[in-house]
Amino acid sequence: MGTITKSFMKIKLLVIGKTDEAYLTEGIGKFFKRITHYVNYEMEVIGDVKQGSKLNAEKLKEEEGKLILKKINSNDQVVLLDEKGHTFNSRQFSGFLQKKLNGGANLVFVVGGPFGFSKEVYERANEKISLSSMTFSHQMIRLFFSEQLYRAFTILKGEKYHHD
Amino acid sequence: MGTITKSFMKIKLLVIGKTDEAYLTEGIGKFFKRITHYVNYEMEVIGDVKQGSKLNAEKLKEEEGKLILKKINSNDQVVLLDEKGHTFNSRQFSGFLQKKLNGGANLVFVVGGPFGFSKEVYERANEKISLSSMTFSHQMIRLFFSEQLYRAFTILKGEKYHHD
Repeated sequence: MGTITKSFMKIKLLVIGKTDEAYLTEGIGKFFKRITHYVNYEMEVIGDVKQGSKLNAEKLKEEEGKLILKKINSNDQVVLLDEKGHTFNSRQFSGFLQKKLNGGANLVFVVGGPFGFSKEVYERANEKISLSSMTFSHQMIRLFFSEQLYRAFTILKGEKYHHD
Repeated sequence: MGTITKSFMKIKLLVIGKTDEAYLTEGIGKFFKRITHYVNYEMEVIGDVKQGSKLNAEKLKEEEGKLILKKINSNDQVVLLDEKGHTFNSRQFSGFLQKKLNGGANLVFVVGGPFGFSKEVYERANEKISLSSMTFSHQMIRLFFSEQLYRAFTILKGEKYHHD
């Protein structure tokens, strides 16, 4: 069991485009509140690329990538939520989180747009993790991730939420 | 690309305990409506086991198992959503679905309670599939599954929702 306590360290969830379904906003908000009991947590929304719907997938990823990189500080640990990423079970993910928290840098989790990340974003990333081998909408991933992050803290704290 | 058309076949999602968060009900409802464009689809809620909170995990699973088995007909193809199940990507899942639909039997997907399934339910099951190596609440799985089932039909129909 880890012993993480609320620290100066921040965790940020960086996403592209505002959450467009009220039910997702509500669910994400519920977990958000719970997570802030454990850590300094922020969700930052990057606005959609202007005229993005006129761009092809490659160009759109590239433009999104520029916006993402602008929001990342040089010392941040950057973790992409990516289908090609490392798979964990929830307990392993809590261990991963503990290790990162011990490292002391701020932690930025990034959810890309519908087509994924640009080369530049992959190059900047410190880690890639995958929540599922299935594809979920980049909007819904926000809710899934929020639940997993909350779950990870309850595991580290030895609270009752999680059953193996 | 499959060529599944709306048929006499039914798909049922069988879950334990009513959905207790309004945002989940709303999200599940949205996908429900979309799925019924493709197939005869039903979500059936089995009431919580009476005084279930007084039972230990094993006993609770057993009681839940009895309620689940009552809802299953002898010809149904039963697919458990289970952490120990087979993992698919979304396209593979759509292939699995197509195969099952071709088989012609009614298809029942089952989400267990917080502690999983009893031995009897495992014995009755035809398949076990896992949406993620991570644990999500048995309530949230309903939403994830709904999205994946909808996504699977859009893949089979060659519609634009899914990007590999």
